[in-house]
Amino acid sequence: MKSHTLLMPLDMHLHLRDGVMLENVAPLSAYSFSGAIVMPNLVPPVENKEDVIAYKERIMAAVPNDSFEPYMTLFYKNYDKAFLESVADEINAIKLYPAGITTNSEGGVSSFDIEEMRPTLQAMSDMGIPLCVHGETDGFVMDREAEFMSIYELLASNFPKLKIIMEHITTKEAVDMLDRFDNLYATITVHHLILTLDDVVGGMMKPHLFCKPIAKRPEDLDALLSVALAAHPKVMFGSDSAPHPQHKKESCGCAAGIFTAPIALQLLCEIFEQFDKLDNLQAFVSDNAQSIYGICPEFKEVTLEHRPFTVPSDYNGVVPMYAGETLSWAIESVD
Amino acid sequence: MKSHTLLMPLDMHLHLRDGVMLENVAPLSAYSFSGAIVMPNLVPPVENKEDVIAYKERIMAAVPNDSFEPYMTLFYKNYDKAFLESVADEINAIKLYPAGITTNSEGGVSSFDIEEMRPTLQAMSDMGIPLCVHGETDGFVMDREAEFMSIYELLASNFPKLKIIMEHITTKEAVDMLDRFDNLYATITVHHLILTLDDVVGGMMKPHLFCKPIAKRPEDLDALLSVALAAHPKVMFGSDSAPHPQHKKESCGCAAGIFTAPIALQLLCEIFEQFDKLDNLQAFVSDNAQSIYGICPEFKEVTLEHRPFTVPSDYNGVVPMYAGETLSWAIESVD
Repeated sequence: MKSHTLLMPLDMHLHLRDGVMLENVAPLSAYSFSGAIVMPNLVPPVENKEDVIAYKERIMAAVPNDSFEPYMTLFYKNYDKAFLESVADEINAIKLYPAGITTNSEGGVSSFDIEEMRPTLQAMSDMGIPLCVHGETDGFVMDREAEFMSIYELLASNFPKLKIIMEHITTKEAVDMLDRFDNLYATITVHHLILTLDDVVGGMMKPHLFCKPIAKRPEDLDALLSVALAAHPKVMFGSDSAPHPQHKKESCGCAAGIFTAPIALQLLCEIFEQFDKLDNLQAFVSDNAQSIYGICPEFKEVTLEHRPFTVPSDYNGVVPMYAGETLSWAIESVD
Repeated sequence: MKSHTLLMPLDMHLHLRDGVMLENVAPLSAYSFSGAIVMPNLVPPVENKEDVIAYKERIMAAVPNDSFEPYMTLFYKNYDKAFLESVADEINAIKLYPAGITTNSEGGVSSFDIEEMRPTLQAMSDMGIPLCVHGETDGFVMDREAEFMSIYELLASNFPKLKIIMEHITTKEAVDMLDRFDNLYATITVHHLILTLDDVVGGMMKPHLFCKPIAKRPEDLDALLSVALAAHPKVMFGSDSAPHPQHKKESCGCAAGIFTAPIALQLLCEIFEQFDKLDNLQAFVSDNAQSIYGICPEFKEVTLEHRPFTVPSDYNGVVPMYAGETLSWAIESVD
């Protein structure tokens, strides 16, 4: 049977939530990933050193001993340098949300005034703290990411030594930015390597395929596939796996977010094999991220086999992408 | 209190379904409309004289005596002239669906071969039977209607005397066609005078705002408003009101269709008043349709008042648009 081994898979954009949901989903990521960049958009957001340390402890308590490294992030505000120096050892990045743009982002940045942001961003640049960005404006849903490119330009050109990660990119416009600025990087989800808006609302409306940024046009999908499959050195896998209770997905107003953590590696094998690029998957799911973030995850070896895997209908009430459907790769062993 | 009276309102694109659903929704349309063009996409579709007569009888049985005129349609196939002559007195139009493009359209047209269609379309043209068209390709969801414009061109230029109704138009491209071909007309829904894709998936995902064709971009909304508010003589109101049981809207795969029949006139007053065009509403909801179809509906006078109207949460299990929300116009009396 055909198999494929991945070393130290990393999920560079993950929502672990808190409380019961954290206890439910964290072990699923810890099983197949060595570590993950953990998003700080809790309610209230993670925005001081004590919050970071306490949240990390709750995550560690939710997963088997030493099986998983949570790379912690802080919710972006205009912090001063002294504060950043005090917290730098506890975090791997700071995550910037435009205010109100997605789940629990109300306290984010409401205007991109570079001079107001300069002290924080210059300090981050000097200290080597990457800036992760949810890059969407509040414009028309299909244009939000493309419209944000001018803000990426502003950030990248004003802080040329600051590592800026364009999170969960969904458009050709964002892909094109990678080669325009040395300091722009990107994460790409597995669902954005599969879906277009057609899958979400082209036939039936599919709440479990609804996320932000929403899946875009076929030409955008092609652009994302081109850099992911080539394992472009500036792109990394980040699932943006975003669990919600089932009743928040299947109702009159469905919350945004696709839950992929437990099926991400299987799906990635399927996609990379389909395009005959399995050899590039290691760089996409780990090596590029290690280089970009300068991290050295603990050893973990995940072996997948080319055999049918039926996705569970739910994980304790959280419905994953492709619930009940059969994928062509399964996780065989984790060492 | 400000009031506005409409004479013989007509809904030129309506789904009444059949059986229990027909009995539920038909009286709601019959209350506020003089008549409606009734879509033939039942299962199986309405495609012969006996079907038309029997369906009309079921509709008449479902509404109070003589309160409502169902203008019947036939599901388009390549019919011969003798058949069309036999059925012409029973119908007001023939509705063409591309195969598989929307609810119950599997038996529609799978290729637009003008020569194959010519005998039917020429006979319709000669006999003065309008052709109603669901104008979407099977392309990317945001492009489907715009891509169909070349087919409208083909139909309009090959059969210059055939009245062709572009049903439930949603794009600037379709609006622009109205002035390019003398024989192209259009219906516009009330929801497409309000919604863009932002309302459907820009914030939460809203199953009760999900329909086909899907709501498009802001510039498309502007184009639709411009011709509707001006009561462009080639456009008519057609609700495309499409009832589904609640469980088919609020689930893992939500069916397309917005149920607006019982709130359409109230919403139209709200929109036309907002743009100070109430004087044009009569033409949009009745006069234009009477001219285009050559029909003379029975007298009905509907008076609306500018006062709060809270939309019911459901009509016997069918959830309307804006369920539970309050509109600013209410129906005061029907004579």
